[in-house]
Amino acid sequence: MRTLSFLILSIGASIFLPSALMAAEPITPIESPADVDTSKVEIGKQLFFDPRLSKSGFLSCNSCHNLSMGGSDNLTSSVGHGWQQGPINSPTVLNSAYNLAQFWDGRAADLKEQAAGPIANPGEMAQPHEVALEVIASIPEYVKSFNATFGDDSITLDRVTDVIAEFERTLVTPNSRFDKWLTGDEDALTSDELEGYQLFKSNGCAGCHNGPAAGATLFQKMGIVSAYETDNPAQGRYAVTGKESDRMVFKVPTLRNIELTYPYFHDGSVSTLEEAVQVMGDIQVGRRFTNVETAKIVSFLKTLTGDQPNFALPRLPPSTPNTPQPNPYGAL
Amino acid sequence: MRTLSFLILSIGASIFLPSALMAAEPITPIESPADVDTSKVEIGKQLFFDPRLSKSGFLSCNSCHNLSMGGSDNLTSSVGHGWQQGPINSPTVLNSAYNLAQFWDGRAADLKEQAAGPIANPGEMAQPHEVALEVIASIPEYVKSFNATFGDDSITLDRVTDVIAEFERTLVTPNSRFDKWLTGDEDALTSDELEGYQLFKSNGCAGCHNGPAAGATLFQKMGIVSAYETDNPAQGRYAVTGKESDRMVFKVPTLRNIELTYPYFHDGSVSTLEEAVQVMGDIQVGRRFTNVETAKIVSFLKTLTGDQPNFALPRLPPSTPNTPQPNPYGAL
Repeated sequence: MRTLSFLILSIGASIFLPSALMAAEPITPIESPADVDTSKVEIGKQLFFDPRLSKSGFLSCNSCHNLSMGGSDNLTSSVGHGWQQGPINSPTVLNSAYNLAQFWDGRAADLKEQAAGPIANPGEMAQPHEVALEVIASIPEYVKSFNATFGDDSITLDRVTDVIAEFERTLVTPNSRFDKWLTGDEDALTSDELEGYQLFKSNGCAGCHNGPAAGATLFQKMGIVSAYETDNPAQGRYAVTGKESDRMVFKVPTLRNIELTYPYFHDGSVSTLEEAVQVMGDIQVGRRFTNVETAKIVSFLKTLTGDQPNFALPRLPPSTPNTPQPNPYGAL
Repeated sequence: MRTLSFLILSIGASIFLPSALMAAEPITPIESPADVDTSKVEIGKQLFFDPRLSKSGFLSCNSCHNLSMGGSDNLTSSVGHGWQQGPINSPTVLNSAYNLAQFWDGRAADLKEQAAGPIANPGEMAQPHEVALEVIASIPEYVKSFNATFGDDSITLDRVTDVIAEFERTLVTPNSRFDKWLTGDEDALTSDELEGYQLFKSNGCAGCHNGPAAGATLFQKMGIVSAYETDNPAQGRYAVTGKESDRMVFKVPTLRNIELTYPYFHDGSVSTLEEAVQVMGDIQVGRRFTNVETAKIVSFLKTLTGDQPNFALPRLPPSTPNTPQPNPYGAL
């Protein structure tokens, strides 16, 4: 009798309380923010695509966080001003509002602080902030937009990074097949994908890759069980905190859209999901996944690809005679 | 009595025969093509934005023919593989289907022939055609699209350039204010703009800049009245024909969207429309335009900005383990 009651309650719960079931999963549905300032989003979108924020006039935020390609550049490390090779793999901008902090080492607290970095970084866009601001202020259509949004003509770094961050907040990718399954569509996943998810959970992957972004909620050492072999000199959080215990501690990347954001890890050294899963098994959870297990986990990971950003290609307002000229070929 | 009849006939013509008036103007309305193959256009659009057609995995057609910026890169000359400086200003891809031939020197007969050039050019995208084809053939979603369009899986250079060219055929910019005026809206232009257009015609500019693209219908010598001073070594049609008479003879560029496609001329040496108009006056028609005349001509030229391409940012299908890897940092 007690067994029967329990069974009835269980069935009742699964039919009438899907939210209770959802709460039991380490990965939770991801949703677009409801409270964005659309006026800021529109300016931020233009600036995200505007190469005039770079010294060369050739590189934009979208060059390395390409929204046609999962918000990444699919390169081991990015191409910067003068074709300088970047020091680290460019993380996806998709769902980056969910990151506990920005950059692999978390040195920026939020998207707004992050946005200022690459513009002025001599190895990336290489444009002094004051010149970037001068460029924007020289273009009447931008001035008009800032005026409409902020109530006056002042173009400041604070406002520029504010609107770029507001645009980036919209770059959320809901409605993946995994989200559909999470929210009650039992047919959304195949049995292999579900088994892959069970393996993901039962082997400890969800200990770090959890929450709506399936990651991004904590810093973790790269190489918990055994050391990670790499030529890349990045030391992660250590560069920010100076603590020995933070050596090789990086922000756990989101697994959302992981199918699109190859190559993998902070050094971009691994080009396939299969290899990435096996390396993670080895060095993080001490499990040598079989090829069959790996294939199932990879099939689960591919269900995390959600709706990609969907908007009209932005149109950028033309420069004027007052606009500082791009300088692509000067000395670095 | 004859005067009165003439007046009545004139009024009648202007009221009832706007097409007759239109025919009298050297610049004619531009219209989007009606007969495009939308299936080809969609693949071509993706390939136009796909940096995997380049050796680096970083440069796409859109890098130098940026559809957010008038189909140009707004640089003196373009950035190629490894940050090589291009030899000539990147012409706009907008309305390029109207060009009598492609490239400044007309060395490609049409868009299809043109599209093959930059992909394999070692100074541009630097990707051997066979590798570019291998990349596309390794991506199931592309194969599926080619199959749906052509009836089989074969990915050939002929088909790739065919779909890119078909997409480019759609990059027409109708509905400029000048077109509205041409087609009967008398209030579409200000009096300054109309006076600028009259100056444009009465000073011989329309001798070369005519037709729906306001140019692109013939080759012409750069420096008819006096020599054009430039450090750029390009010799125009001479490079194609070897005829002395073709030295410094270039394709007359379209003036459509000229406000967006700075800097100007084949060497990209002039950054403002005002200077461009004055140089053209000097060396092509032997007229030293006053500042007032120049301003009026420039105000007319700005009425040639039409509807810019309007479509959703393309989404690119991900690579697979079979996709040739990008090679951004290898030897040039």
